[in-house]
Amino acid sequence: MTTVTVDLGSRSYPIEIGPGLLDDSSCWEPYAQGRTLAVVTNSTVGPLYARRLCKSVAGLAARVVMVELPDGEEYKTSATLNRVYDALLEARCDRQTLIVALGGGVVGDIAGFAAATYQRGVPFIQVPTTLLAQVDSSVGGKTGINHPRGKNMIGAFYQPEAVLIDTATLGTLPDREFSAGLAEVIKHGAACDAGYFAWLENELPAVLARHPATLAEAIAGSCRIKARVVAADEREAGLRAVLNFGHTFGHAIENGLGYGTWLHGEAVAAGMVLAARLSVDMGSLEPREARRIRDALAYARLPVTAPVFEFARWMDLMELDKKASAGTPRFVLLRGLGAAYIAGASEERLAALLATGEEGARTDPLQPLAGPNP
Amino acid sequence: MTTVTVDLGSRSYPIEIGPGLLDDSSCWEPYAQGRTLAVVTNSTVGPLYARRLCKSVAGLAARVVMVELPDGEEYKTSATLNRVYDALLEARCDRQTLIVALGGGVVGDIAGFAAATYQRGVPFIQVPTTLLAQVDSSVGGKTGINHPRGKNMIGAFYQPEAVLIDTATLGTLPDREFSAGLAEVIKHGAACDAGYFAWLENELPAVLARHPATLAEAIAGSCRIKARVVAADEREAGLRAVLNFGHTFGHAIENGLGYGTWLHGEAVAAGMVLAARLSVDMGSLEPREARRIRDALAYARLPVTAPVFEFARWMDLMELDKKASAGTPRFVLLRGLGAAYIAGASEERLAALLATGEEGARTDPLQPLAGPNP
Repeated sequence: MTTVTVDLGSRSYPIEIGPGLLDDSSCWEPYAQGRTLAVVTNSTVGPLYARRLCKSVAGLAARVVMVELPDGEEYKTSATLNRVYDALLEARCDRQTLIVALGGGVVGDIAGFAAATYQRGVPFIQVPTTLLAQVDSSVGGKTGINHPRGKNMIGAFYQPEAVLIDTATLGTLPDREFSAGLAEVIKHGAACDAGYFAWLENELPAVLARHPATLAEAIAGSCRIKARVVAADEREAGLRAVLNFGHTFGHAIENGLGYGTWLHGEAVAAGMVLAARLSVDMGSLEPREARRIRDALAYARLPVTAPVFEFARWMDLMELDKKASAGTPRFVLLRGLGAAYIAGASEERLAALLATGEEGARTDPLQPLAGPNP
Repeated sequence: MTTVTVDLGSRSYPIEIGPGLLDDSSCWEPYAQGRTLAVVTNSTVGPLYARRLCKSVAGLAARVVMVELPDGEEYKTSATLNRVYDALLEARCDRQTLIVALGGGVVGDIAGFAAATYQRGVPFIQVPTTLLAQVDSSVGGKTGINHPRGKNMIGAFYQPEAVLIDTATLGTLPDREFSAGLAEVIKHGAACDAGYFAWLENELPAVLARHPATLAEAIAGSCRIKARVVAADEREAGLRAVLNFGHTFGHAIENGLGYGTWLHGEAVAAGMVLAARLSVDMGSLEPREARRIRDALAYARLPVTAPVFEFARWMDLMELDKKASAGTPRFVLLRGLGAAYIAGASEERLAALLATGEEGARTDPLQPLAGPNP
């Protein structure tokens, strides 16, 4: 078992990483002992893992309340959040209740926001079961729900007591979701840590084969990078924005195709390729470094070419991005691998970049585009 | 103008107190300069003060978005909260938007919770216009809404950037609400500060006459006491519970009569008389001190006798109270004026206390019961 500490002063917490944590009572003891646990999960993950979790805390918890939500981003709404509140109140859960988020990013975001707001805040722990949730949403304390007018518009920064990552749960993760999670893993290296990126390039075959020890190491490394960034900028005042590498283009792709057509990680993958090419155009990144990013993503079976939009549509979509200030899109760019910075770009430059994107445009993620370093 | 500082480390904020702040641009400058302001108010307070606020920030704010909510505790719901979110999104308010809560406790609680959760938290300031909100809900960062199953069940601790108390706004406050606010003022003295209580006893005639300077001094003193307690226990882990003096009985009264029949401050007033008598029964308070509390409340035109309930009903109602642990009600009691502690009480003792409460029972708050120190 590996422990990564997210260092946030009095709100610091450990991320425990390893295979089999779900079934290991000793991992649960510090959190479950004597408490009421409210396990929030969904209709896909619950049937797979809830019973095993209950067994691990059976001799520890005072009682366990199960809250099963429907599965899917379309349920990340105030209506679903209210179902969690109703279940907690129905079971007379008090302020000492520990909320356990068992599932992917949507479950973690809703359960975390319920924890942040139920009786003005109760403790919670994350048990993320997708790669994306393990390396991304479980580190940093972002919780929330969508609003009809925008994603993640309602939420809070609220840190868990701990994150328990059972890497064995990735065994049941569909390939497409696994690849989407890898997009964030690659992002952490490309934007924040050249050494980790180089290690990952070498280990991608083992990671894709879901080799347990390599997977645990990749996740720990990725969490460590994100934890470092979050520790320096808990509330996203500045530095933390580097984690949005690929996201200005990525959000535009997600939004332009309609949310859910491409997975978030897929849109970010194509977005990172564009952001790397923009960095090359701006003279801050070597073409061969941009190529390494593209190759790693392609090897991870992620799309590396954005869908085709008219240029005016691109601009509209990017101006909706949260990083846009006064209607001008901002981009996370690279000054070499592992070193991100934020800048705007002229319309001319963007027009040239996005026009060339049309060659070989594709809208079918999921198939590998190329072998490693071809 | 008096400034009271709520000392919460990086979340510290000033409470500015004085007549005419609403019309004083210099008070607004540090908060409004260059920002988008979203003023959340209600249909009673808005027409009285919103235009004056807008005038004060006219040369400062980038723009002002008005959000007017219906007036009343029955609107402290998720539906009303959603109206605030909708309005903020409709006006494309970003993360730099300053939310201004202009109104009483309900407006402050909803607007504060909207600020805590809109785009994971935006800055806000409180401009409380009722005495209760000025001395109670504006200090301490409690925000939230009601749930059909319980009051304040959904919320967050979220501190404002500042609280601006224009004591002149109390000129339009109905007598009954003014008295209900005084219940909390008296509570702060009785539970936490004997010196302030003694000062208040002497000044009650001037306070009730709403003499501007005395009123400002009473409010500043009351805020100072609450700020001290909150600074020592921001998230209500222990000490802060002393501010619930009178509340175990008070909540039972509110709940038993149906919320809204008595105002919160009225129920707490009768609850404090019972809690003081229980303290006397437990041997920790002199009868003459309990009498001083009762007299101050009566002089402030607050009810000092609880309504009549069967004893079993009292117990049911008190077990619903949040301070009840494992079904046993807990009480904030006094070890002399200004020194609160928390304890349980035997059923026999409570039965005796609540039975004698039936003499002279009354359910009509609002009329003075006695002169000062008769």
